Amino acid sequence: MGTEFLKIKECDEAIDIIQELFDENLKPESEEIDVADAYGRILFDDVYSRMDFPPFNKALKDGFAVLSSDSFGASEESPNTLEVIDFLEAGATTERNVEKGKCIEISTGAAMPEGADAVVMVEYAEKGEGTVDLLTTATPFQDVAKKGSDIEEGKLILEKGDFLNPGKIGVLLSQGFETIEVFKKPSVGILSSGNEITLQGEELEYGKIYDVNGGMIKNDAVSCGADARFLGVMRDDYDEVKEKITESLKEVDVLFCSGGTSAGLGDVLKHVLDELGEVHIHGISVQPGKPTIVGVIDGKIVIGLPGNPVSALMIFNAFVAEPLTRLAGIDRNFELETHKGKITKRIHSQVGRMQYQLVKVDGENIHPIFKDSGAIFSLSTADGYVKIPKLVELVDEGEEVEVYLFN
Amino acid sequence: MGTEFLKIKECDEAIDIIQELFDENLKPESEEIDVADAYGRILFDDVYSRMDFPPFNKALKDGFAVLSSDSFGASEESPNTLEVIDFLEAGATTERNVEKGKCIEISTGAAMPEGADAVVMVEYAEKGEGTVDLLTTATPFQDVAKKGSDIEEGKLILEKGDFLNPGKIGVLLSQGFETIEVFKKPSVGILSSGNEITLQGEELEYGKIYDVNGGMIKNDAVSCGADARFLGVMRDDYDEVKEKITESLKEVDVLFCSGGTSAGLGDVLKHVLDELGEVHIHGISVQPGKPTIVGVIDGKIVIGLPGNPVSALMIFNAFVAEPLTRLAGIDRNFELETHKGKITKRIHSQVGRMQYQLVKVDGENIHPIFKDSGAIFSLSTADGYVKIPKLVELVDEGEEVEVYLFN
Repeated sequence: MGTEFLKIKECDEAIDIIQELFDENLKPESEEIDVADAYGRILFDDVYSRMDFPPFNKALKDGFAVLSSDSFGASEESPNTLEVIDFLEAGATTERNVEKGKCIEISTGAAMPEGADAVVMVEYAEKGEGTVDLLTTATPFQDVAKKGSDIEEGKLILEKGDFLNPGKIGVLLSQGFETIEVFKKPSVGILSSGNEITLQGEELEYGKIYDVNGGMIKNDAVSCGADARFLGVMRDDYDEVKEKITESLKEVDVLFCSGGTSAGLGDVLKHVLDELGEVHIHGISVQPGKPTIVGVIDGKIVIGLPGNPVSALMIFNAFVAEPLTRLAGIDRNFELETHKGKITKRIHSQVGRMQYQLVKVDGENIHPIFKDSGAIFSLSTADGYVKIPKLVELVDEGEEVEVYLFN
Repeated sequence: MGTEFLKIKECDEAIDIIQELFDENLKPESEEIDVADAYGRILFDDVYSRMDFPPFNKALKDGFAVLSSDSFGASEESPNTLEVIDFLEAGATTERNVEKGKCIEISTGAAMPEGADAVVMVEYAEKGEGTVDLLTTATPFQDVAKKGSDIEEGKLILEKGDFLNPGKIGVLLSQGFETIEVFKKPSVGILSSGNEITLQGEELEYGKIYDVNGGMIKNDAVSCGADARFLGVMRDDYDEVKEKITESLKEVDVLFCSGGTSAGLGDVLKHVLDELGEVHIHGISVQPGKPTIVGVIDGKIVIGLPGNPVSALMIFNAFVAEPLTRLAGIDRNFELETHKGKITKRIHSQVGRMQYQLVKVDGENIHPIFKDSGAIFSLSTADGYVKIPKLVELVDEGEEVEVYLFN
């Protein structure tokens, strides 16, 4: 009790410090994955075409591959007759060349035979015994996609940071990419602490509660593009916290600890961080979530979240979601993920620190959710939060506000 | 050649028929998953609270659990002195009751001891040897969250169709849910066909191209919430197509076949569907994508997509994404996923059928992407498409349009 917050930071300061700690300590990494499983992943490098596409002069229609000059002057009234010397399906090849007076019947998608420079569509041709009457004039390269006309070899086709949607995956597949380098998902762990914490599946003794933050923060990290796992519950005991953190940092790059009580873990975590590394933030001037602590141990980031789930979720979203998402390579525009509307009920705020007010969004109407911050069920309806600056005492009904949306 | 489309449908008709075929043949199913892995899944049933929350009267502050009446009249000038008979940490219990003149020191989150009805915060108390001086008056239930005050047992806490975001996952965890019923991901398969189709990793012979639709449509189905897999390449041969489809339908509920050429697979697929089941759509009056075919075999849906990847992607998005997403339980508002803007370059359209024009979105500016529909690289920049109704001949520069966004 009587926790002293020696490195208490204003909100904006804290946001900057956490982003800097991520930038300085954690470099984005890549991994190679199957293109066929790449939906939603982020390209780690620019991608250049490996070959011309189409890789050959390609027939765009079913018809006859001809020398265009052999069709000149042809019409329904006065067809030009050519000898049909072969038939080419898509995927097939032929040894025969198209010479003056000859042609090859061809399917859509087939490679144009040597010599031919145009396709006369089947609709404009009348087939006979080993011959065909062309009923129209074809211009050079009519109904032919030239080799490399879609893309030439060696061109930039996709860029670092691109979100791999089905269309971009299609582009990679067309160039024969089987695997691709994408941003590796940041490795995130979550430890819960508190003597009252019980895991789901175990019987709940009187005075105890189920762990919420472990699974909730894990899923929030997943929503930011991380590979996140819950690493268990620890007691608020110095040796146990130190051991669990040391062990966990062998496995993950970003570690969240969330205390069961506001003071319990905070003090212990502060001392463990002081011993093993460095504390950069000890307390943020925000309501709720003041007891947040951020430190670095051997180039890895440790964040102590408030034990209260509502506070923990807000702190995660307001301070960590953005740097974590960036580390995952996702260039999400956080400014755009806000929603403007009008407050439907007056909000009072304590002057002197920033307040985050949970809200429910209903189109233009922004309903504040007034429950004490231990009220977990407010999370079932909350869509995000509104920031009330430290010097503002109240936000009146009808005032326009910006909602920061939860994932 | 000369494919006859006997069941050709207008676009709106086709959209309705496909939705009906999904509704009639495929019922959403559920599966039980770990709550800790539930991010992004959709609740299959309403969820009711299993217990009161908090499950006991809970101290909201560090301080002293007292009979509020013992604090009446207390002030800094005239404190009330009580005997401190125990200390309760969060998660702990005590045999001792709080009686008149006595109190128990208590931590945030601990269960209130019998008898006590309020907490006096540590900031308003002065501890002595086995006693404490209360410096303020506490009202009944001050700094106490009553049992069930957040939620009572048996209340509706989450609803069928809810998207499980971190907050809702937190709510489930707080109630001790270890697993939860969610919508099962629809089981989707994709077969590619065409003699020119080569798989990534294999060497590309002259005249052949890499398969795009298998992996691309798989990923598009994944983006709609499906469990999708690529089931291989088949030749446009009646017996092979029949066998592959029969086999595949043992594994999946929705099967996409995409032909390498516009005519090749279409004819074969039509006959196979006629033999094994029923064809409901054979041709859609749309450019590109006319050779689309939709049938039902033993309550499962088979969709023949155009072989051209750009056409296949558009047909998938315009006709199948919505029913598939609904089957996955996702109540996405497809109307909202459009984007309004102004066309930057005149688009000509063939009168007589609906045209889908690929576009790139740049804020208010909607740039049409003019490439023949075989141009796969247009997919690396396309954000979606604009619909040009069948009787419209051109969309002029500056006209306002609605873009249907790709996933």
